Amino acid sequence: MPVISSKGKAMPESPIRKLAPFAEKALKEGKHIFHLNIGQPDIKTPVEALNAVRDHKLDVLAYSHSAGFESFRKKLAGYYAKHDITISSDDILVTTGGSEALIFTMGSITDPGDEIIVPEPFYANYYSFSTQSTVKVVPVISQIDNGFALPPIKDFEKLITSKTKAILICNPGNPTGYLYSKEEIKQLADLAIKYDLFLISDEVYREFVYDDSEHYSILQESILDEHAIVVDSVSKRYSMCGARIGCMVSKNKSVMETAMKFAQARLSPPTFAQIASEAALEAPESYYTETVAKYKIRRDTLVEGLRQIPGIKVAIPNGAFYCIAELPIKDADHFTKWLLDEFHVNNETVMLAPAAGFYSSPNEGLNQVRIAYVLNRRDLKKAINILKLALAKYTDQESFSTVKEKVTL
Amino acid sequence: MPVISSKGKAMPESPIRKLAPFAEKALKEGKHIFHLNIGQPDIKTPVEALNAVRDHKLDVLAYSHSAGFESFRKKLAGYYAKHDITISSDDILVTTGGSEALIFTMGSITDPGDEIIVPEPFYANYYSFSTQSTVKVVPVISQIDNGFALPPIKDFEKLITSKTKAILICNPGNPTGYLYSKEEIKQLADLAIKYDLFLISDEVYREFVYDDSEHYSILQESILDEHAIVVDSVSKRYSMCGARIGCMVSKNKSVMETAMKFAQARLSPPTFAQIASEAALEAPESYYTETVAKYKIRRDTLVEGLRQIPGIKVAIPNGAFYCIAELPIKDADHFTKWLLDEFHVNNETVMLAPAAGFYSSPNEGLNQVRIAYVLNRRDLKKAINILKLALAKYTDQESFSTVKEKVTL
Repeated sequence: MPVISSKGKAMPESPIRKLAPFAEKALKEGKHIFHLNIGQPDIKTPVEALNAVRDHKLDVLAYSHSAGFESFRKKLAGYYAKHDITISSDDILVTTGGSEALIFTMGSITDPGDEIIVPEPFYANYYSFSTQSTVKVVPVISQIDNGFALPPIKDFEKLITSKTKAILICNPGNPTGYLYSKEEIKQLADLAIKYDLFLISDEVYREFVYDDSEHYSILQESILDEHAIVVDSVSKRYSMCGARIGCMVSKNKSVMETAMKFAQARLSPPTFAQIASEAALEAPESYYTETVAKYKIRRDTLVEGLRQIPGIKVAIPNGAFYCIAELPIKDADHFTKWLLDEFHVNNETVMLAPAAGFYSSPNEGLNQVRIAYVLNRRDLKKAINILKLALAKYTDQESFSTVKEKVTL
Repeated sequence: MPVISSKGKAMPESPIRKLAPFAEKALKEGKHIFHLNIGQPDIKTPVEALNAVRDHKLDVLAYSHSAGFESFRKKLAGYYAKHDITISSDDILVTTGGSEALIFTMGSITDPGDEIIVPEPFYANYYSFSTQSTVKVVPVISQIDNGFALPPIKDFEKLITSKTKAILICNPGNPTGYLYSKEEIKQLADLAIKYDLFLISDEVYREFVYDDSEHYSILQESILDEHAIVVDSVSKRYSMCGARIGCMVSKNKSVMETAMKFAQARLSPPTFAQIASEAALEAPESYYTETVAKYKIRRDTLVEGLRQIPGIKVAIPNGAFYCIAELPIKDADHFTKWLLDEFHVNNETVMLAPAAGFYSSPNEGLNQVRIAYVLNRRDLKKAINILKLALAKYTDQESFSTVKEKVTL
């Protein structure tokens, strides 16, 4: 029997989805599960997007241009201009989700064995895409105690080798919810220039910032014209995860010409989804403000609720719709399975994402979980209450006592 | 300035699309171009597919399962059963186009430096995807004189090394139009078993077979259960190139579990396109028969027309909607540009795909072009006439005389 590849073996299972069998069993037992584990928003997709697809006039569903509809790319340039980002439509390549933008980016700038430095914890699929490209992710650990702020620049410098091709950040961060300050972006920009590295920023949560914070893009740093590559997506912005439309943005012509060759190989991004995504740009300003207002209330509800639970440590997220919480347990993976398998409150339970999957360093984040606040406020309160009761009942006493010492609220 | 990757540099430009600037110039000059160069059919997409999208009831465009809708995969298993291919829905992974099915296949079975043997000429993007995976394509040359039939098995055997992981065929073939016989598939099956190699078959043109020929799938060979991987797509079958839906099919559980990890990393295939693709399976039998009947007429028109042109050699294609023609010129690339740039008949010209882009061996196929018969019969006749007049006028005499000797009709 022929064997599969080493990199195929090394590909991680999705930490978010690998618990699915436990969830399926719970559902079969008649339990209701509050999903705090996935980034699938419950927010409605803009009607402009949904109706544009309903009203399509196609009789042949043809390939589009490999770079995406020209009309869409031009409107995207207008969208970026509203965010004080000055680019032309030629600096944009429409991709099949932010996922493909990352794959094209890695393919365009790295060869097997090259290294990319990523603040940890990070979006788990960065690790998958780098494994797929046989590129090494080099983690630089950020800390829950300062809310997962940018690690000191000297920590990055220690990790830079001749193999280092790029630094990759997610801003605001999945899974941390941390929003990098303008000052932090400038520090990273200086670092990228100093060592002539690419700076890749995943900015798919650009709009999701709270408390009058402002998002600062690497594309606003003019010194980075040749170094900055932004990965973007409509998935979260418009609650259109199923569209699978994103884009890659860079003013570096060599990078974009190279990415275009990857784009030509896969022919084109999906046509219906481009129709929807182009129309979504017509959504009124109120769509964004109302969505963000909803998430702010949810975030406040979540953080306030978690702080009522003894032994939990949580950093207030300033962006995206996730936070990392440290629980008074030893093994979040075991706890998550236990929640699905053995626990319920009136036949209701919660599903969490164990945070170890967001770390590539071994033994990091074992007692942490990622919580996505994609539920309405009422459900969120219920879910937090279930979590509270669960932690009171969870009898892995050894875990509890071992870890308790290092937990401070 | 940071540099792009070696593999990014090695990625080929699309041989089909790289002539686009010449075509754009011709259009600006007011010329009409008959496109014989691309595989975008003019056939209408089934109304069942287009209407299913018009009638969608979504208010949140959510992720689907990473393997695709379960309902779609079940119906796909039914579709394969009609083609005497017995598989379960668990053997199917829905992908973003046949392209992604190829990428997942290569990722699951090859590591950098591994080799895949491919009969040449081959679909140009096989080379792109292997370059992207830093895998080496090892070509085994097939010949226009026998219609690009399967090269002798001993030619394959000569090329097998410890690095060889798979043999990849396209059946029926793009760009050759060749349909492998059951006997040839059995020879390949024996070879795959003998050397314990994967046999990958791109069967996206399964329905497009003419003259009472029958398509024989590698999935019909029971000895290949652990070795066969099929790449499929709705693009050509339903004239839905813009959907970007395909699938990967294999009974090898390790392969499918590995591919599933790649699928989880990119989250899901596009939702609207899955709705369309699932509904396309409801198209009546007449959709297929009428489409194939149209292509048969076009093929006959094309071959008959080409045979009227002095110095052209063409193999009758038994499948797909392409053929390779050898022209009485030296450099098909130059001729193609000349057609767009300098030639016209009453302001009309044709665009061809130079075949060198379908060969990885240097200096092969330089005087060949791929012709896609995706035009209606009237336009096809016009296009052939333009080609005839162009060849009579084309004055690259040196080219002509150099090559003429080896051309026999």
